[in-house]
Amino acid sequence: MDGYQNRGFLLKQKAFLKLHILHKVEKKNGYGLQILDELRKEFKQFGYSPNHSDIYRILQELTKEGILRREKRLMDGNAEFQEIVVYHLTEKAPEAIVLYKKQMKVELDRCISLLNKTVHDIYG
Amino acid sequence: MDGYQNRGFLLKQKAFLKLHILHKVEKKNGYGLQILDELRKEFKQFGYSPNHSDIYRILQELTKEGILRREKRLMDGNAEFQEIVVYHLTEKAPEAIVLYKKQMKVELDRCISLLNKTVHDIYG
Repeated sequence: MDGYQNRGFLLKQKAFLKLHILHKVEKKNGYGLQILDELRKEFKQFGYSPNHSDIYRILQELTKEGILRREKRLMDGNAEFQEIVVYHLTEKAPEAIVLYKKQMKVELDRCISLLNKTVHDIYG
Repeated sequence: MDGYQNRGFLLKQKAFLKLHILHKVEKKNGYGLQILDELRKEFKQFGYSPNHSDIYRILQELTKEGILRREKRLMDGNAEFQEIVVYHLTEKAPEAIVLYKKQMKVELDRCISLLNKTVHDIYG
C-alpha cells in the first residue's frame, strides 16, 4: 500500500476513508454496504455522508494492492439467497496498516493544528 | 457575499483562505503579494503553502462582490516606482464579514470535531 503523501491543505477524503475502512475490517470482516452504512451513521452528526462509489473504489484498490481479499458468501435475503462479497485482511495487511495508521496520525494532527490555529487567530 | 455551504467532507480550501484574507484586510489594508507572504509564513509549520493564483482569485471575487475595493498605489521599488494594488474593506464589508465568520466558525468546529473523533476512535 502506498504511503500517504499530502502536505497540502487538509487531508484528502480518500485517505481519510481508507483509514476508517481499514480500521473497520481490522476489527470485523464486513461487506461493502455494511461498511458504508456504519461510516454514514458515525459521520452523520458531522453532516458528512460518504458516497457509495468512494467506498467501493477504495475497497477495490485495497484488494488490488493485496491488503484486502474478497470472499463471496451467500446471504439469506428476503425472498432468495443473495451473493455478497465479504472483505478480509490479507497476511501482509497488518504491517501495512500499522505504517499507514502511523502516517495518518501525523497528518490528522497536522490538520487539527491548522484548524485550531485558525480558530485561535480569528476568533481569539 | 454568498454564505458558506459545504456540509460535505472537510471545509474547502477556498472558504478557508477567504476567511483568512478577510481577517487580514480587516486588520490592515494590504496588497496581494503581502497577504500571500503572510499566509505562507503562518501556515509554513503546517506544511501548507497557498498558491499565488488561489489568493488572487479570491481577492478578485471579493472585489467583484463589493466586499473589497482596489486602490492603486505607487511603491518605491529598487530602481523605479512600481504600481501595486492595495485592498480595502468597502462600506458593506463589516456586516458581510461578521456573517461569514459566524458561518465559518460552525464549519471549522464541525471539521475539528470530525477529525478529533477519528483520532479518538482509531488511536484511542
